[in-house]
Amino acid sequence: MTYSFSNLSKNIRRSEIREILKWTRKPGLISFGGGLPDSDLFPLKEIADITKEVLDTKGYLALQYGQTKGEPEMVQALCQHMQEFGDDAACENVCVVSSSQQGLDLLSMLFLDDQTPIIVEMPTYLGALQAFRRHNANMIGISMDNDGMKMDELEKTLSESEKQPRFIYTIPDFQNPSGITMSVERRNQLIAIAEKYGVPIVEDSPYRELRYIGETLPSIWKLSGGKNVIMLKTFSKILFPGMRMGWVVAEEEIIDKFVVLKQSVDLCTPSFNQLILASYIEKGMMKETIEKAKKCYKPKKDAMLKSLEKFMPPGVRWSKPEGGMFLWVELPESIDTKEIFMTAIEHDVAYVIGAPFYHDGRGKNTMRLSYSFPSLEQIREGIERLAKMVKSIL
Amino acid sequence: MTYSFSNLSKNIRRSEIREILKWTRKPGLISFGGGLPDSDLFPLKEIADITKEVLDTKGYLALQYGQTKGEPEMVQALCQHMQEFGDDAACENVCVVSSSQQGLDLLSMLFLDDQTPIIVEMPTYLGALQAFRRHNANMIGISMDNDGMKMDELEKTLSESEKQPRFIYTIPDFQNPSGITMSVERRNQLIAIAEKYGVPIVEDSPYRELRYIGETLPSIWKLSGGKNVIMLKTFSKILFPGMRMGWVVAEEEIIDKFVVLKQSVDLCTPSFNQLILASYIEKGMMKETIEKAKKCYKPKKDAMLKSLEKFMPPGVRWSKPEGGMFLWVELPESIDTKEIFMTAIEHDVAYVIGAPFYHDGRGKNTMRLSYSFPSLEQIREGIERLAKMVKSIL
Repeated sequence: MTYSFSNLSKNIRRSEIREILKWTRKPGLISFGGGLPDSDLFPLKEIADITKEVLDTKGYLALQYGQTKGEPEMVQALCQHMQEFGDDAACENVCVVSSSQQGLDLLSMLFLDDQTPIIVEMPTYLGALQAFRRHNANMIGISMDNDGMKMDELEKTLSESEKQPRFIYTIPDFQNPSGITMSVERRNQLIAIAEKYGVPIVEDSPYRELRYIGETLPSIWKLSGGKNVIMLKTFSKILFPGMRMGWVVAEEEIIDKFVVLKQSVDLCTPSFNQLILASYIEKGMMKETIEKAKKCYKPKKDAMLKSLEKFMPPGVRWSKPEGGMFLWVELPESIDTKEIFMTAIEHDVAYVIGAPFYHDGRGKNTMRLSYSFPSLEQIREGIERLAKMVKSIL
Repeated sequence: MTYSFSNLSKNIRRSEIREILKWTRKPGLISFGGGLPDSDLFPLKEIADITKEVLDTKGYLALQYGQTKGEPEMVQALCQHMQEFGDDAACENVCVVSSSQQGLDLLSMLFLDDQTPIIVEMPTYLGALQAFRRHNANMIGISMDNDGMKMDELEKTLSESEKQPRFIYTIPDFQNPSGITMSVERRNQLIAIAEKYGVPIVEDSPYRELRYIGETLPSIWKLSGGKNVIMLKTFSKILFPGMRMGWVVAEEEIIDKFVVLKQSVDLCTPSFNQLILASYIEKGMMKETIEKAKKCYKPKKDAMLKSLEKFMPPGVRWSKPEGGMFLWVELPESIDTKEIFMTAIEHDVAYVIGAPFYHDGRGKNTMRLSYSFPSLEQIREGIERLAKMVKSIL
């Protein structure tokens, strides 16, 4: 008996990063790998108390089937949360999703046909590339500098494009993997260019609330007046990932399409998880947690930057993020971070290789470092090890 | 600005049933609509206690990212659960999914191309039809009698098929919507025919544990020795739907494909929910809950059958389920249950129209009645109202 599979299933690749991350289980190794939030921040007691309260007061709802668009309490709470961070959205503009990754998946199903052109940043989020690649999208990459996606390159690409791209995918705040934030000027340019060429913007925004330096920039959703923008949000980085909860923000006609599609994908996101997190937001605890997270991550980021300054040899460059969880390192072009990965493991330190974050596999001399999970001491020690390893192969 | 959508998105239809179910919110109306478990069965206190225990003892795991295949504790607990109901499966044969609907969605992505032929029962589960239709499958229907799918018709169809169907989709136990159970003889015939023509079997099995009369039949998974069968399971009917948790059982090579695909779909199912339910099973509470559910639903089924006998006019036929949540009613062929739906609403009773459960929209004279949610008194009263309405239009 041989099973026959779909053509689509041939586009599915096992994540190269997941494959090599298994080496990071080596005892004593310090990993700057996965973008895991620091589990010391998890409000365990608060969640246990709220769960009890939810089950006591509306357990029949919490454990029953819910609405595909999301429980009304949750949708309302999400609007409250966004308002607290400067974003206006009405309940009609929101659909709850079972993780931001599901948002990317639904987005891909709604917009992508075989070889549909779309615009992505170089580098960009691996999970997005996985979803887009599964739909066999024709990804067109735009370079970035310290102010985010280069707008002259974007405009040139759009003006020369034979087929109109279906959307422009950007992570404007503390981008994963680069740590770069798009300036306000660029955001406004992006909106104008997208408008001119009639291409919607997808604003993936998992880290926006986690700014450690300077003023929070207005979201593209906000600057555009909620037109022509689909925003993806998640609890995974600002609270915890273990409940797999995200939400999509868009014009009502687009939200309707997400909802109808989601019916056949998973019917609804767990009501149990929604009612717990809705209560957490309503009680004002979300804002507190985010403040704590910022206090936890800022010194970690500073420690990583300081250690890089102190230990890295000349010829190595890195980004200077103002928030989020990641920074991006460029080694001299002669070095392939995949080839030297096992050398790093021998030095008891791990990173994520950079090439998989490029739609076309370039960036072989790059790596992503995450500072959110390891302790301050591990960050200092780990960067010293990493620098020693880099020096050993230069 | 106009958005351009994918071709696939054109196959997405808003569920006709969901549209008409909004009428059932009328005060005083008795609904035999959605397949909701009785919320009086939900173990609220037990879940609150277990949640506290999970957060106390392994909260860092429960709220962190989990493994795509499922948390090891959960996979182990699922094997234990299946064993208790006569099914052997090793951990390698199991992948946790975020609802059985996600199982259907992943299955569709893995197996279906445009116009891929597949075999479905007539009638069959609406959520499966939605998923298969979204992938534009070429669905071929096989009739059923009181012993399930007709094997002579299946063999004839397979022998005459130009293109080999990718799978045979069946719900052998207390089928949704018909309430019919496939006999052991038919199960063995199905395995032999599937083997002969080299077509895998998809065994959707949400209700199997809920048998009220007679002996539990061996699953197709069991009878086949775990070869050539993909089994879909869920907690939604045997415990509660609010945590959106299901699992897929199949040969290891197939499970690997589900896992890799699931990475780009939602990364993983909530660890929080998995660790809670794993503990619920480990403590032996699942078996107890199922016993309670059977004691709750059996009298409801009996009451519905008795009331149908008592009140329905001649010319109306219905199935006599031995378990599950549904029974199937056939009115005289001249009657269209969609056309008379509003008349039923006027009589303060609601059902689900039957045609959407057929891949080709036939069965206009049929309806599905669910007895799991309403009380015994509501069942008696509701069937009397329904019978009165049917008499009024005959």
